[in-house]
Order: sequence, then structure tokens, then C-alpha cells
Amino acid sequence: MSPRDQGLLLPDHASLVVHGRDQPGIVAVVASVLARHGANIVALDQHSDDPAGGAFFQRTVFHLANYAACHPLLEQELDAALAEDFDLEWRFTDLSVPKRVAIFASKSDHCLLDLIWRQRRGELPMTISMVVSNHPDMAEDVRGFGIPFFLVPTQDKAAAEAEHLRLLQGNVDLVVLARYMQILSSPFLEALGVPVINIHHSFLPAFIGAAPYRKAKERGVKLIGATAHYVTEDLDEGPIIEQDVVRASHRDSAAELARRGADVERQVLSRAVLWHCQDRVILHDRQTIVF
Amino acid sequence: MSPRDQGLLLPDHASLVVHGRDQPGIVAVVASVLARHGANIVALDQHSDDPAGGAFFQRTVFHLANYAACHPLLEQELDAALAEDFDLEWRFTDLSVPKRVAIFASKSDHCLLDLIWRQRRGELPMTISMVVSNHPDMAEDVRGFGIPFFLVPTQDKAAAEAEHLRLLQGNVDLVVLARYMQILSSPFLEALGVPVINIHHSFLPAFIGAAPYRKAKERGVKLIGATAHYVTEDLDEGPIIEQDVVRASHRDSAAELARRGADVERQVLSRAVLWHCQDRVILHDRQTIVF
Amino acid sequence: MSPRDQGLLLPDHASLVVHGRDQPGIVAVVASVLARHGANIVALDQHSDDPAGGAFFQRTVFHLANYAACHPLLEQELDAALAEDFDLEWRFTDLSVPKRVAIFASKSDHCLLDLIWRQRRGELPMTISMVVSNHPDMAEDVRGFGIPFFLVPTQDKAAAEAEHLRLLQGNVDLVVLARYMQILSSPFLEALGVPVINIHHSFLPAFIGAAPYRKAKERGVKLIGATAHYVTEDLDEGPIIEQDVVRASHRDSAAELARRGADVERQVLSRAVLWHCQDRVILHDRQTIVF
Amino acid sequence: MSPRDQGLLLPDHASLVVHGRDQPGIVAVVASVLARHGANIVALDQHSDDPAGGAFFQRTVFHLANYAACHPLLEQELDAALAEDFDLEWRFTDLSVPKRVAIFASKSDHCLLDLIWRQRRGELPMTISMVVSNHPDMAEDVRGFGIPFFLVPTQDKAAAEAEHLRLLQGNVDLVVLARYMQILSSPFLEALGVPVINIHHSFLPAFIGAAPYRKAKERGVKLIGATAHYVTEDLDEGPIIEQDVVRASHRDSAAELARRGADVERQVLSRAVLWHCQDRVILHDRQTIVF
Repeated sequence: MSPRDQGLLLPDHASLVVHGRDQPGIVAVVASVLARHGANIVALDQHSDDPAGGAFFQRTVFHLANYAACHPLLEQELDAALAEDFDLEWRFTDLSVPKRVAIFASKSDHCLLDLIWRQRRGELPMTISMVVSNHPDMAEDVRGFGIPFFLVPTQDKAAAEAEHLRLLQGNVDLVVLARYMQILSSPFLEALGVPVINIHHSFLPAFIGAAPYRKAKERGVKLIGATAHYVTEDLDEGPIIEQDVVRASHRDSAAELARRGADVERQVLSRAVLWHCQDRVILHDRQTIVF
Repeated sequence: MSPRDQGLLLPDHASLVVHGRDQPGIVAVVASVLARHGANIVALDQHSDDPAGGAFFQRTVFHLANYAACHPLLEQELDAALAEDFDLEWRFTDLSVPKRVAIFASKSDHCLLDLIWRQRRGELPMTISMVVSNHPDMAEDVRGFGIPFFLVPTQDKAAAEAEHLRLLQGNVDLVVLARYMQILSSPFLEALGVPVINIHHSFLPAFIGAAPYRKAKERGVKLIGATAHYVTEDLDEGPIIEQDVVRASHRDSAAELARRGADVERQVLSRAVLWHCQDRVILHDRQTIVF
Repeated sequence: MSPRDQGLLLPDHASLVVHGRDQPGIVAVVASVLARHGANIVALDQHSDDPAGGAFFQRTVFHLANYAACHPLLEQELDAALAEDFDLEWRFTDLSVPKRVAIFASKSDHCLLDLIWRQRRGELPMTISMVVSNHPDMAEDVRGFGIPFFLVPTQDKAAAEAEHLRLLQGNVDLVVLARYMQILSSPFLEALGVPVINIHHSFLPAFIGAAPYRKAKERGVKLIGATAHYVTEDLDEGPIIEQDVVRASHRDSAAELARRGADVERQVLSRAVLWHCQDRVILHDRQTIVF
Repeated sequence: MSPRDQGLLLPDHASLVVHGRDQPGIVAVVASVLARHGANIVALDQHSDDPAGGAFFQRTVFHLANYAACHPLLEQELDAALAEDFDLEWRFTDLSVPKRVAIFASKSDHCLLDLIWRQRRGELPMTISMVVSNHPDMAEDVRGFGIPFFLVPTQDKAAAEAEHLRLLQGNVDLVVLARYMQILSSPFLEALGVPVINIHHSFLPAFIGAAPYRKAKERGVKLIGATAHYVTEDLDEGPIIEQDVVRASHRDSAAELARRGADVERQVLSRAVLWHCQDRVILHDRQTIVF
């Protein structure tokens, strides 16, 4: 069974992500600590953006019998080995445990339903804890899958965000905005304390503001794209996780461009969510390293 | 032999492009005139962006024995048939005659050499009349192919454009900017009187100004693109002919991104030049119809 | 509203497909008959594989007020105009009427559910008359959408095909095999009398027989593909409608290759079904012309 | 400067590829030996096809001041550390040294010229030691680049292979068949002792034998592909390094399909050659691991 065997949870497997200033010896220290505990490394990716003091990134997936029990000691030893000599951040992720995800949606259902079906089919290592929407339209569909649906109107933004926090805090590891057409405030993002992934359409060249597909049509673009990114306080400017495009032509109406865009949006979003849930994405400044 | 048998000139074949306000009956009139002259339609594309008075576009490729001799009468009849009842523009293009093309380049050779090799291999229905550059670097390579090379320094922009006009006027049907890093003035474009195609890098999102690949690297883009477009007075804002992208990752340095960009640039540019030389591109407002 | 405005039915729009030996004048005759009836051509594609007596293909989409009422007379005139002078086949398709489709499935649900969701979202101009399966697994899901589900076991192949005919004849315009793992007999296909579209995985190079993804894994393929085709008596050898691929690598287990294959299968199948329902596919010998 | 900064040779950088049966501790041993010598790991990829005794693959790129001088001792220590406890194969590659490559070609020039231009532009970390052909057609072009051209007729196959060995042995690290239309014998491949990379067209489904593009045209394929692979005694059955496809349609003649195929062939071949020269490809049974 491969660690990329996506969607299947991996018993007694965990990932270790290490991130910081590059220095000789990091890989050796990490590998030694893991080997000492009898962990077998099954995948290892490492990247350095400049060996002379640049940033260093490493993701290791290992198998360790009885990981849950061994984990505290392993963490303690790694802390001792790394923290003193190196100035690094690291995190362990138990790959046998699904991420708990909340999906936010508005009226468009294509991204929401795609995530639900993929999760149900075992293609995403996550559970869907709830769907939150500012429209009642999809309540029945969502509840038909046995997933809680919460309607939170957004006319009063402060009240809505308070309600969101009440629903989410402690309950989820990730929030996915599946074409949720509301801006999240910086204080909300800070209070939330878990990552938020968003999907938005992308064009060459970019079309900003309302009615992007109409503008793209008028400009005769030949490609329609989508970008999945982490949400930061700068709307649509967060670190990019994944992007893709599909071809378009003069034959496509603005409505057809939007439909093609929907197709590529849901593919890009599902890949970004998968990779995040597999702990394969490392944030660094305004970019991501995706192993 | 198919009309898409690209790069081979087609004896006794011509294309007719018709463009204007959509009205019932246009296709019938065009087809009847062609049929009366014994022309056999071998390809026909038609597009209407709104049947209720929108814009109408048609490209017909036909075979007509002895086209060169029959052409004046054919044109006269079509003029009579169309001009009176319909408010349309049209043009014939003799597909047995190669386009005469000037290529402008600066220091990057990837697009220039790609066009030269493709032309030499018979993949483009054109002759390369000359290469014009503001740098002497590629003189020897270009002349090695038997193509005239003209060095026109651009320190004095007015003098340079005057020299460009002297070289080009009457001699070429198309100018291709193959990574030519100089802006062409509006008066120059007007005096030139033939289309100009440019290639430039494109990103999702867009990075404006200098060092785009460095900016793209900092932002962690996952796609690198290129756009070929007709040059208008708005730099890089002309009607798009073709676009494409390649994938990128955190492993790619800014230099590697630029090399991948070069690969996609030359592919996109060669497709745009091919389609233009086959008379398959129709300009309409700020967009193109590519049949 | 464009004729490519896929999924939306087009009131008072129809397509005319003409197919036969190429001769001068066909386009003119067709266009004249349509113009005489006041039809406005909104899209026209034409292809000739050899102007000197090769095969000719034309698809015309036109708007004609009150098409349903005018249609018989239009057909009669076209018959008179074409049948006597030209040896051609043609067909009209009313683009305001959805195709009636039966979907056959076995245990895999990815293609079936993708078609159901797209149809529900208005992306496919069709109704789903029924789902037929040799396994009961998906009965509940399918019926949850209000679609009849029929379980037809296939241990007794003759009995199964008799039951299939009883269900389908007169009720459907198209059968889609959405990963239906049973071979249809030639007599059945003949008796059925409507087209059947199938989807199957495809590889470079091809892997025939059982466990194709395992074989592809062993051989280290870098691309995973899918092919949608019309079903003929030669299994998996029918005329190809659409194909596509996704990248793969050594990191992907055979199970992951199968999941990626599932993704591309459903995309390819949905495009093939869409184009068929829009009457954009013309069969010719062992190939298709897709306008 | 990144180790993926392709085409630029990397002073004092080397790669270490390790390959064998997976066992816990390999990564730690390798990393420790490198760290002890002051080597800084700048890239590390590791793959295990089954942690429970499957195959293990690792590629490490490291910077080590004065690598050429330190190398023998490093190798000796690694040998001691790995050979006794683990049953592994490994190899070092000095990334500051270009590979010496011979290109074999016949009459088609697209792959040959693409490699020459890319090498000249610094996109490939290799030198082209010679071009060998069974046709004189390209002698002048090749020699114009300052590259030796050897004409070796192949009527007498044994004599030709003897001449090939005389030219190649000791002089090259890699042979690239750039559309060389002759089969190499098993004894020749064995005597040669360096890898051979070939490019061939690929289709979905596969068309075997002569005139593949005509067959693909008759079958109406929608994709045209190419596969680069190592040459083994089974013609066209060697381990795949890279594959790609381009779209095709009914509009494309067999000649146009061949031209599109040529475009994808040269892209796929140049990527395979690049990755091989960067020592990123590991052979394993009938497949490759490409890091």
C-alpha cells in the first residue's frame, strides 16, 4: 500500500514536516531519530530554495507499529535533537486519522457536491463535519447525505461570523470555501485558527471584479482557469495550492465558459483539499511547497 | 489533400472570409455564387454570436480550377450579390501564395529560430523576407539560413521606425514580434498597414512589469503561460489569437520557469502565425474568431 | 444564446446533418432551401476528406420560428432538392427536445453519478429514462434522484437481453454504458436500433484483458487515458468519439491509477454524451466527425 | 541556484542514487555519511513501492566543496556503511560534468535539430560528441554546428554495428535515437555498455507496424502521442521515461497528424534526455522511477 494511495487512511503511518533555515545535517538527524524508533520511511521529499542559508522543507512519511502509543516519545526526542541545534519548525500528522472538514457554500453546488461524492467514494481522507451556507437551497441535498447543514444568513456580518465560530471552533481541522461568495474578516480568520482553502476562477489575462466570464468572453480568451489557495486577509491573494485550465473558443458563450470554469474549479479544489488532508502542502511566505 | 494540410501551399485553393451583421440568407448567397463559378467548397466554418442581429463570421475554403484567372470575375459577382443587400466585409486569400513575413527579434533566439526551422521544414505557408533586430547577436545565425538580417538600433526611436517602414512597406504581409522587446508606436502601426503579431508570457494571476518570472516564483504559481495576440496601440492588450500553459512547481527556479516559458512561447507563437497565414483568424472588436 | 450553450434546450432550433459523396453545390442547395423557409443559420460546420469525390459532412444549426409546424414541408423540399441530384443522407434533429437516455451500470458509480448530476444541473440536453444494472448496489442512490432503476441479472444472457429490449425499445434514443461490464451481442445491438456509447480505459501502450491498471503500473506508464466510442460488434473497436489522458507517475499505486482513470473516464464520457445529444457526431466508416 | 536549474552544470554538486530492497535505516545511513563529509543535501527524493520488503529508491543531490577531490573517500565510506548491512546498489554522478552524447538519426530532422538547438542554448547538461546517420542528408546542417557527422550505411548490418562500436566506445555516456529507423541488435546493445534512449509515436489504441499515422487517421483518433523509452532487446518495449499527447481531429490529414506527432515527439524526447542527463531516472524491472 502506497502513501499516495489517496483516500485510504493509513494505519500506523504518519508524516513529519520540517521547515526552516537550511543547514547541513538536518536530514541525517531526522532520519536517525526515526530509525532509532524503528520507523520505516516510505516516502521522503526534501527541497531547499538555496543551500547557502535558504529555506529548507522536508516531508517524511513513515510507518511505525503502534504509532499512537510511540508518538509522544518520538516527538520528545525529535524536539531535543532539532530544537537545540537547529532553528526549525516541525509537525507530525497521524495519517490514520481523517481531517474534520467544514464546507462553506452559497448557491453554486458543483464544488460542494463534487467534494461530497469524492469523500463518500473514499477518495478524500476526511470527514465532512458540516456544510454551512448563507442560502437554504442545498439543505435537502446535503442532509440527504447525512451531513449536518447549517443556514447562517450574512446580512449581519458580525453576527454571522460569531455563529460560524460557534459552529466551527474545536469541531474542524479545515474549512473549505466551495464557491462561498462572502469575504471572511481578518479577526474571524485569526479566531478560527484552522486553515481555510478557497477556489476562484482565473484567467489569462486576469479579469477583476464582477462578471469575469462575460469579460473573458468579450476579450476572446482561449483558456479558462481556476486557482485553489489558502485564504489570507488579502482576498484572492493567498498562497496558491493548485491551478489548472481548460481550452475555450469563440463558440463558447459566456454561460458555457462559466460551465467549463465550473468543471475545472471542482477538479482544482478537490486536488487542493486532498493534498492538504495528506499534509503535503507547506506554507512559506506567499507561496506553497506541494510535495 | 486537406485544407488543414498545414504548411503545404494549396494550388487553386482560396479562402473567403465574410464578416458583418448577421442576417438570414448570407450562407446561401455565398454558396450560390461559389457554386455558379464551379468552385467546390472543401471547408466551411460559420459562427454567429447572436442570430438576432449579432455578428456573423464565415470562412470558406474552396477549390477552383484556374483560380488566379477566375478571381476578378468571382469577386465582382460576390460584390454585387452581397454589397447591395447585406452590409458585410469580405476578403479573398489565395492559398497557393505564401505570406511574406518579417520577424523582429531582440536577444532571445528561441521564438525566432523556431519559426525559421518550421518554415524551412515546410510547416508554415510563408516566406521569411527578413529579420530585423536591435541587437547584432543573431546576424550570423539568421544569414546562415539565407535570410536577410537588418540591424536597426533603437536609441533614436523615430529614426528606427522610419528605417523599419522603409524596409517593410510593400515587402511584407505580416510582422511577427518574436520576443522583440521594444514598443511600436501607434503612428508606426498605422503607417505599416499590415498586421503585427506579438508573443508575451502570461500568468495566473498576472504579474505586470519587470522580472515577471521572479515574481511568479515568489508567488508560487503552478502554471506558466504564453499569449499570442495582434498588436494594437494598447501594449499587450490586443486581440488574443492563442494561449497555452505548462505546469510548474516549487522545484523550478526562476531561471527554469523562464525556460519553460520559452518553450510554451514558441509553441503558442508558431500556432498563431500558422493560423494567421492560413487566413483562419478574424478580428472582431477586442477578440478573434479562429476557425 | 449560442447553439453551444450546452445543456440548455434551444426552442425553435434544429440541426441538419448531411453526409455523402462530395460534389460541388451541396452547400448552396442546403443553404437556399433553409433561406427560402426563413431559417437563419446560426452555426455551420462542413468537412470534406477529399474534394475530388471524397466524403462530405455538414452540420447546420438554424433558428426557424415555429419549427415543429414548418418541419414537414422543409424536409419535403430538401428531399426533392437533394435526393434527385445528389446521393446524400441527411437527418434533422429538433434541438428543443431532450434525448431520452438509458444508462447501464455495474458496480462502479463514478460515471453513472457524474451523468446524473450533470443532467440535473442542466449541463446535458437529455432526460434519463432509466438506469439498468446487473447489480442492486446503486438502486437506492438512483431512485433517490427520481430515476427508475431496473435490476436485470445477466447469468442468463439471452433472457437478460430480452428483458433489456423490453425495457428500452420505443423508450430511449440512446444507451450509455457507464462502466457496464457486460458485452452486448450483435443481435441485441441490431434489435435495439439506437446508438450505444461506451467508455473504456486506454493506455499508451495498450494493455488488453484483465487488470489493466496493474499492468500499466508494472510497465511504468506516465499517462492514463480513457476513450468514449460507439459500440459495435467488435468490442472496444467502435468509432472513437472522444479521448483524454491524465499524467501518472511511479508514486501512484495501481489503485491510485484506477482512481485517476475514473476521473478522466467520467470527463470523457460526459463530453461524448453531450456531443451526441447535440447531434454533433457523424459516423463515417470506423471513425467519427465531431463538429 | 537550484539543482533543477536545468541545463546549467552545477559546480561541486553531485547526485547519489540508491536502489535496492527496502529496509529501515537506509535514509539515516546515507544522510549521516553525507553529513559527516560536510555535504549539504539540496534535494532528496525517496520512494518505496512497498515498505514491507519492497523496492527502495532514493536520489540525493548535495553540495560538497571540492567534490572531485573528496569523492573517493566519500564513496569508500558509503560502501562500508551500506554494502555490509544492506543489499543495495548505488551510484554517484558529478553534476558539474556534462554527459557525452551521440545522436543517431535517419532522414527526419525534427528531433535531431531540437536537441542540437536546446544543447546550444544551454538547456541540456550535455555535449554532443557526434551525430551518426545512415543517410547523408543532414551532414551539412550538423557540421554547421561544429558537430562531427558520421555516415554509416546499414545495408550490411554487422559491418554497420562494428563501425558504430568503433565510433562510440569510450567516447559517449549516452546514445539517443532521434527517429533513427534501424533496429539495434542485442549483442550491439550489450557491447555498447551505455544507455540508449529512443522516441516513438504512440496512439490510443496502439497501431503497430507501418504507416501508423494513416491507420490513426482511418480510426479517427482524437489524441496523438509519443513515448521516450530506454532501448532493450524488445523493440519499443523498453522502460518508459516520458510520454505526452496532443489533440487531433477529423480536420487533420494523415500528414498533419504526422506533423503534430513530430512536435510532441521532440518535446517528449528532449525531456527524457534532460532527465537522464540529470541522473533523475532509475531503472527498475520494466519501469522507471523519475525523480
